[in-house]
Amino acid sequence: MSGKLYGVGTGPGDPDLLTLKAVRTIANADVVAYFAKRGNASNARAIAASYFQPGQIEEALDYPVTTEIDRRENGYRDQIEAFYAEAAERIASHLDAGRSVAVLSEGDPLFYGSYMHLHLRLASRYDTQVIPGITAMSGCWSEAGLPLVQGDDILTVLPGTLDRDELARRLGNTEGAVIMKLGRNLAKVRAALADAGRLDQAMYVERGTTANGHSVPLADKRDDVAPYFSLVLVPGWSNRP
Amino acid sequence: MSGKLYGVGTGPGDPDLLTLKAVRTIANADVVAYFAKRGNASNARAIAASYFQPGQIEEALDYPVTTEIDRRENGYRDQIEAFYAEAAERIASHLDAGRSVAVLSEGDPLFYGSYMHLHLRLASRYDTQVIPGITAMSGCWSEAGLPLVQGDDILTVLPGTLDRDELARRLGNTEGAVIMKLGRNLAKVRAALADAGRLDQAMYVERGTTANGHSVPLADKRDDVAPYFSLVLVPGWSNRP
Repeated sequence: MSGKLYGVGTGPGDPDLLTLKAVRTIANADVVAYFAKRGNASNARAIAASYFQPGQIEEALDYPVTTEIDRRENGYRDQIEAFYAEAAERIASHLDAGRSVAVLSEGDPLFYGSYMHLHLRLASRYDTQVIPGITAMSGCWSEAGLPLVQGDDILTVLPGTLDRDELARRLGNTEGAVIMKLGRNLAKVRAALADAGRLDQAMYVERGTTANGHSVPLADKRDDVAPYFSLVLVPGWSNRP
Repeated sequence: MSGKLYGVGTGPGDPDLLTLKAVRTIANADVVAYFAKRGNASNARAIAASYFQPGQIEEALDYPVTTEIDRRENGYRDQIEAFYAEAAERIASHLDAGRSVAVLSEGDPLFYGSYMHLHLRLASRYDTQVIPGITAMSGCWSEAGLPLVQGDDILTVLPGTLDRDELARRLGNTEGAVIMKLGRNLAKVRAALADAGRLDQAMYVERGTTANGHSVPLADKRDDVAPYFSLVLVPGWSNRP
């Protein structure tokens, strides 16, 4: 009989933001798997490791290329596609042998999570359960104490990779907004927020719920340096019943 | 010395989706407060109650009017505004007496949460910490096993109260979408999804992570009945690296 596959959200960084269900699932799994960039420690593993048990098998799924390469580039697509296919087969071999597998996913597994690539390849073949996690954006607005959306507000989650006009148009046409994938896009994001008349509302949050996290109004941030785990939050709500 | 205020997300319904931090904060608080509709049990209390401790003070904050009334109506606004002001003062009196207060909030406190109304009135006056929770939408797409957004996808969270044309326009202009506040709006939401050519992708999810929850493709749902805790999910992603 095949083992069961679990996609387990680890939340944004603080191990105390693991759910009870995630902790129990991790502790009970025969195999714990996690993604990492080659040469780097896995963030998801670091969050969850204190719940690993003696005798558990660990499967480190190391990306063959950096995820910073433009994903529209063909060489990148082919390499990463082969990597996900091979990772899925490594997980499948454990499931075929009757071992349960918990695949750790930073944040929430089905919300921009790397686990999605395995889910797509395995969920139709094996008994599968997804355990949601606290998203990075939720960790960030909680850390910043910033009420985001309320009532009939629209929320738009945007990648900073959009061009300036498109960003400005969408920022002018929503109540709340979250801008992800800042990286080299921060100067453009700042300009688009100014175009939309919303720069004064925007909050920059870096490494949300970790010990060295901090937040600052984007208008007060003097440089254009934004690590991968940073976000801009634009609240849609201030005080309406 | 004043007590500390905690906004505590309880997640979407399954008590096992409480975070470790939420459990500890609830158990250690001097006062546990929660909102409920008058005459109804509090959902947030039901999720968290097994972690309440003997001797803790409970503060039930009972809404004076149903939240189903149109919020643009003046009588509603005045009543609900007075209610939140009074609730904030009840919490403040505990904080002034040096008691810590955990305000429970279904889902995530700063994401469409009732706690936001207290945060706005109290966070500038008292030491405050917000503990994020699993959102209802995250509970729903996890339960349905539905990958939602990936990579550079845009996600739009929409209230079903928007008019049909506006819904259709926005649904045609985003990758992933979540439609909340279905209630009496389900027939209109279905029509707008059809207008946007996306009805076949849409999944209806009811009471996400609770024992009697279920999901069904919206195109297969034969009636227009949608309880308050239901959502429509439109995935933005199927299989791209």
